[in-house]
Amino acid sequence: MPDAPSDPPADDQVLLVADADGVRLLTLNRPQALNAFNQRLWHAVKDALIDASTRDDIGCVVLTGAGRGFTAGQDLSEMADTSAFAAGEEPGYRALMPVLESFPKPLLAAVNGVGVGIGLTILPHCDIVLMAEGARLKAPFVSLGVTTEASASLLLPATIGWQEAAHLLFTEPWVDAAEAQRLGLAWKVVPDEALLDVTLELARRIGAMPVPSLVATKTLMLAARVEAVKAARAREDAEFERLVGSPANQAALEAFFG
Amino acid sequence: MPDAPSDPPADDQVLLVADADGVRLLTLNRPQALNAFNQRLWHAVKDALIDASTRDDIGCVVLTGAGRGFTAGQDLSEMADTSAFAAGEEPGYRALMPVLESFPKPLLAAVNGVGVGIGLTILPHCDIVLMAEGARLKAPFVSLGVTTEASASLLLPATIGWQEAAHLLFTEPWVDAAEAQRLGLAWKVVPDEALLDVTLELARRIGAMPVPSLVATKTLMLAARVEAVKAARAREDAEFERLVGSPANQAALEAFFG
Amino acid sequence: MPDAPSDPPADDQVLLVADADGVRLLTLNRPQALNAFNQRLWHAVKDALIDASTRDDIGCVVLTGAGRGFTAGQDLSEMADTSAFAAGEEPGYRALMPVLESFPKPLLAAVNGVGVGIGLTILPHCDIVLMAEGARLKAPFVSLGVTTEASASLLLPATIGWQEAAHLLFTEPWVDAAEAQRLGLAWKVVPDEALLDVTLELARRIGAMPVPSLVATKTLMLAARVEAVKAARAREDAEFERLVGSPANQAALEAFFG
Repeated sequence: MPDAPSDPPADDQVLLVADADGVRLLTLNRPQALNAFNQRLWHAVKDALIDASTRDDIGCVVLTGAGRGFTAGQDLSEMADTSAFAAGEEPGYRALMPVLESFPKPLLAAVNGVGVGIGLTILPHCDIVLMAEGARLKAPFVSLGVTTEASASLLLPATIGWQEAAHLLFTEPWVDAAEAQRLGLAWKVVPDEALLDVTLELARRIGAMPVPSLVATKTLMLAARVEAVKAARAREDAEFERLVGSPANQAALEAFFG
Repeated sequence: MPDAPSDPPADDQVLLVADADGVRLLTLNRPQALNAFNQRLWHAVKDALIDASTRDDIGCVVLTGAGRGFTAGQDLSEMADTSAFAAGEEPGYRALMPVLESFPKPLLAAVNGVGVGIGLTILPHCDIVLMAEGARLKAPFVSLGVTTEASASLLLPATIGWQEAAHLLFTEPWVDAAEAQRLGLAWKVVPDEALLDVTLELARRIGAMPVPSLVATKTLMLAARVEAVKAARAREDAEFERLVGSPANQAALEAFFG
Repeated sequence: MPDAPSDPPADDQVLLVADADGVRLLTLNRPQALNAFNQRLWHAVKDALIDASTRDDIGCVVLTGAGRGFTAGQDLSEMADTSAFAAGEEPGYRALMPVLESFPKPLLAAVNGVGVGIGLTILPHCDIVLMAEGARLKAPFVSLGVTTEASASLLLPATIGWQEAAHLLFTEPWVDAAEAQRLGLAWKVVPDEALLDVTLELARRIGAMPVPSLVATKTLMLAARVEAVKAARAREDAEFERLVGSPANQAALEAFFG
């Protein structure tokens, strides 16, 4: 498993993993790319979550980003390379999502900066989202000629209501932290410099609870929606593949890459 | 198809249809009856939606009402005529609803005035609802001795929460625009005179997006709920038919018509 | 049925039942135990609801508590007695829940004081919740080494949103009345001394509506969720039984009883 966080040299770690006080902190660590998800990062997050789910001493996981971004979403250079979909190998996104959809422990997000695409659509998979005052979110699927991912077609209406979800997906506004809280995408807004401390303090309080009861409770919450989430993602994947490479998608990517 | 909007003489059009800039504007046009739905109007809206779904140049549809009402709901004179249900012909309501439940493009409502019955219960089928400051809504099913329609038994709790839905259905308050926005029935409140311009401006921004991606996204959102919506409506239809003509329903209609 | 409310002597009634003006008022009446649910109380509430569902003259039911508590939840002395689960007899909780999940008439709660455990998780089964300014709520399942009950794993996210539900279940804060209203657990906050009057006035307005239409509407609302609610409770029951008597649960109960 060459992508495991401990394997590459330290200056090449796409994901930082730090365990303390019952909490695992995962830091997306491609700051030069605003932590965009490339294949290695998808798999590194997946592996770190699977490992966390088996550890008796970890009761809560926190996800954040290094540098000024949370995550810029799927690496567009890989989206442009449609051969990644055609080749039949499992894309990292498809490896991470089932793990995320069934992750059996409380998962918190500390949204430290810009979150685009999966940087927004991952939030309904997190149990409690804290957001830096200066952070902002955007879901540019329609304008890129594609459509939703990560079961956002189900989870976004469930989280922020149908009308706000429609507005967000059909007009693609930047959502600042205050608006994210008003919508219910974020649970709490925190001054930028305090974000990680506040999130970790909350995570430690959760991590101190009896872990079997945390696991039972989180698993029960997920059980009520997981089949619908998987079905939504399967529908989305089919539409996404159909639209990737379409004229509108090609034009958008060409405009992006110049 | 004698009810198609282009067929009747201009002074007899129950629905006005205007296409421009990627947007189809549908105006319910029975102002003398506060745009109550009679058989012709149900079918005219259905036909205009079906046609809009096939038009590559239309990315968004707006529904509004002519005059001072949005819609007063089902025409009560037809509800009183229970033979319409007994005769076996497809009532217009049952023709429109499946089209609405699966309408594959963004649908906006500009609630210009009073919305009663379906004038309220149609709103959870719209993706974004803008409401004039002076408009107001009401769902008088229980007091009329009948029950919910248009899958409101499912979609009203989903849209405004169980408790607000229960309060609205069991006590039948008038809901003004500010309250409709607070509840989540309306996305935005707009001064009466600006309502249509503001709604059309939003619709044009949506209509300028790649239509295949709009269709894929709206269709994915609907796919997550459409079976539940259809099942709810089937249950409602059965209860409605059972209660139409019941003593409470007859007494209410007699009181209404004097 | 020795637990029926009319059987025990008046000074031993665990549930007070009063019918007037189309409304049945149920008062949990173990004030010395903050109205904790023992076996007799579970069955008494169940019986009173079943009876109310068959009475043509009752259109609405109100649930409240005697004294300074709403309900302290499941009687912990019975939770500690794991033989109650092992013996195979139907625990009162399992007798009440199916009745509550399908109760066909509007059910209001007047939360007069502290609500713990089922005192919180029963609220999403009530249609409209009014709460005294001085009341407060808490869901201590995880810290007791067990997990959710009463389908809270489904209904709490549905009622207050996933993130607030996660925060409430994983950190177990006291929720005061203003916060309960903000979350959507309570529909309205009322001064303590006015709570019952305000609730009964609302209940009488509902009870004056045509009862067959109230029943049809409430039943339609429930039909959209009842299978999911039952499935969630079945999953919870299995987890609860697995965790009762676990080291974390035993330690918590020993700490509680000293």
